[in-house]
Amino acid sequence: MQTGHPPVIVLMTDFGLADTYIGQMKGVILSLAPSAQIIDLTHAISAQNIAQGAFQLGKSAPFFPEGAIFVAVVDPGVGTSRKAIAVQCGKQSFLAPDNGLLTALFQTGKVTQCVTITNERYMLPSRSSTFHGRDIFSPAAAHLASGVALRELGSKMELAECTKIPLPGCESGDNGASWEGTIICTDHFGNLITSLDAEVLDRSKEWLIGAGNHQLPICRTYGEVADQQPLAYTGSSGMIEIAIRNGNAAERLGLRDGDAVRASAASSMPFSPR
Amino acid sequence: MQTGHPPVIVLMTDFGLADTYIGQMKGVILSLAPSAQIIDLTHAISAQNIAQGAFQLGKSAPFFPEGAIFVAVVDPGVGTSRKAIAVQCGKQSFLAPDNGLLTALFQTGKVTQCVTITNERYMLPSRSSTFHGRDIFSPAAAHLASGVALRELGSKMELAECTKIPLPGCESGDNGASWEGTIICTDHFGNLITSLDAEVLDRSKEWLIGAGNHQLPICRTYGEVADQQPLAYTGSSGMIEIAIRNGNAAERLGLRDGDAVRASAASSMPFSPR
Amino acid sequence: MQTGHPPVIVLMTDFGLADTYIGQMKGVILSLAPSAQIIDLTHAISAQNIAQGAFQLGKSAPFFPEGAIFVAVVDPGVGTSRKAIAVQCGKQSFLAPDNGLLTALFQTGKVTQCVTITNERYMLPSRSSTFHGRDIFSPAAAHLASGVALRELGSKMELAECTKIPLPGCESGDNGASWEGTIICTDHFGNLITSLDAEVLDRSKEWLIGAGNHQLPICRTYGEVADQQPLAYTGSSGMIEIAIRNGNAAERLGLRDGDAVRASAASSMPFSPR
Repeated sequence: MQTGHPPVIVLMTDFGLADTYIGQMKGVILSLAPSAQIIDLTHAISAQNIAQGAFQLGKSAPFFPEGAIFVAVVDPGVGTSRKAIAVQCGKQSFLAPDNGLLTALFQTGKVTQCVTITNERYMLPSRSSTFHGRDIFSPAAAHLASGVALRELGSKMELAECTKIPLPGCESGDNGASWEGTIICTDHFGNLITSLDAEVLDRSKEWLIGAGNHQLPICRTYGEVADQQPLAYTGSSGMIEIAIRNGNAAERLGLRDGDAVRASAASSMPFSPR
Repeated sequence: MQTGHPPVIVLMTDFGLADTYIGQMKGVILSLAPSAQIIDLTHAISAQNIAQGAFQLGKSAPFFPEGAIFVAVVDPGVGTSRKAIAVQCGKQSFLAPDNGLLTALFQTGKVTQCVTITNERYMLPSRSSTFHGRDIFSPAAAHLASGVALRELGSKMELAECTKIPLPGCESGDNGASWEGTIICTDHFGNLITSLDAEVLDRSKEWLIGAGNHQLPICRTYGEVADQQPLAYTGSSGMIEIAIRNGNAAERLGLRDGDAVRASAASSMPFSPR
Repeated sequence: MQTGHPPVIVLMTDFGLADTYIGQMKGVILSLAPSAQIIDLTHAISAQNIAQGAFQLGKSAPFFPEGAIFVAVVDPGVGTSRKAIAVQCGKQSFLAPDNGLLTALFQTGKVTQCVTITNERYMLPSRSSTFHGRDIFSPAAAHLASGVALRELGSKMELAECTKIPLPGCESGDNGASWEGTIICTDHFGNLITSLDAEVLDRSKEWLIGAGNHQLPICRTYGEVADQQPLAYTGSSGMIEIAIRNGNAAERLGLRDGDAVRASAASSMPFSPR
């Protein structure tokens, strides 16, 4: 914050962009932190899908600058007794409901501090019971951007007490010869992002990705298959993805979020994958 | 504008985000006011729905800073003889077609000045007849942000001459024992925002909200009903809203924009609402 | 860049806004150029429709300030041997895959310099093979914004070697008595933007626009026809557009992108167009 650069506040929600919710949050932020740079990470997390939000937040945070302040709101429990928390993770800060949305950040091992946001001095004076994104999280972020210390936002909370949820994972039952995962989400192009982490696949082997009744080779890029043909590849988030070159894989392969996927070492298959 | 902070320009239109219209408006603004902070309030006002735009603008403006300059364009009459106006309301400025889009601001009683935007010096030199958002309103906003006085944009207009339209309201035929309204809009989650203003409901009574063949208690938050159950509550705009916990009320209850809603004091009902 | 104003970086892609792709690009940019103003031109170019992107970019660039740096990514060949290029056009810079996306800029005759982006010093250290928007184009733009010279991004490329593609055009087979074109795209309102450039139509004549089995007069603005009636007019991009007043022309007239359109001088018609 003392860098001389405008502070960066990053918003991620499941609010969509059709309403005035995000606009109002930005109005609140600029009222309190007039020079903040406000960036939309995405507002299209599937409604109330905390795990999807946690995944996207964890994958995206490293691309933002040190000092960035994230406001993450996927909040089915808004207005109930669920806590609002502020977390320091590395040199970035994260404000969110305490419902598991920060799980991927806790998994990095870099979270050093957590407080429950309870100090009314850093909230809007008049607060609704259904829109804490505007009334609590946005003003808290703006105050952080203006130099308020994270611990000032409320009371210290033990990291162990913060809610973590199971995220879609990548598991092997045979010592790494094959891995099971799921489809986490489908992007704008119909590409399917899976929970199979490319890092776990033994690079000395060839792999096939199975989903539905499809068995796909892992390519380096779309150009390695013919037009309209399916392929798997390591996506930009480091996870295995399934696509159709110049086509929509979700529609064409009949696959969707939550479906099972499997990586199999091709050497254990009765045929060659390429 | 003399605050040392970047000036804030807020855009609200029915243009959507799929085209380059909003991008071009921002290009024009930054060409003239390079340090402006440009914020999207929303661009998803229903096409040419002036009343909906007026409602959203009135509800959102208070969350933006003093000095904010709003460009509001829902403009079915673009290119006809309808005027373009600039209005001072409290410490904020509003640029819009004179078609009722600023009605909610006039209702605040804080409008102190209005001019018709006629000074070509503050327009783009070449102007289309269908996109005044880019060619007239955006440059006018940028000039205001750069320190031009509102009155310089054109000729003084009497406030009484500005177009006001009927906004979806909240009326009682029985001295406040019940109130009639309509559904103003449906949000991203399928929550239904009504024109029933929570302020008018006598707090000493319990209320039921009727819509279609549903009678719903007013709760404080979603968590007070079971999963997938409907409820009414005071929304973040101060209006009564209808939702289904973790569900889509518009789809599930078969309700839509414009449908009638009714608040009835429960004491006049033959059964207890809770 | 030496103006004292924040540098402007403009993004245009076919990525949509539902994913975190655009957010990650902005994170990368702000990490390297903290004071950049990042503007979305549009992210709704039809998936992999390079010609549509080229058209929109060419029409929109003039509305942005001198010094603006454009990142344009419609990139079906990402990860293949297609080059990444940086182009100086007038006082603006453009970064894009070398696939024709900059065709309209080359047509202006103002391109003075082109380099292939090959200098790894100005890329992210770790790069995916499917998301060069984040890993190559965004950091290159941020470095330009921070004062790096365009030629530093890589090796000089002859302008003649850059890929140009045929853009939807406007041709006459009878010395300007009639012109043939196509529908380039459909906007949020269902208005149809054609490739008929209003500039080529002889202003001393009256013109009819034919599309499907419709023959439409050219009006100055929507207000010249009755409610729900179709019309043609010169749109805000200078091209002939087809609309229905207060209605959706694409749906109502059964027309779509790629359909043929024709401008005919009315004097050669057996009836008067107005």
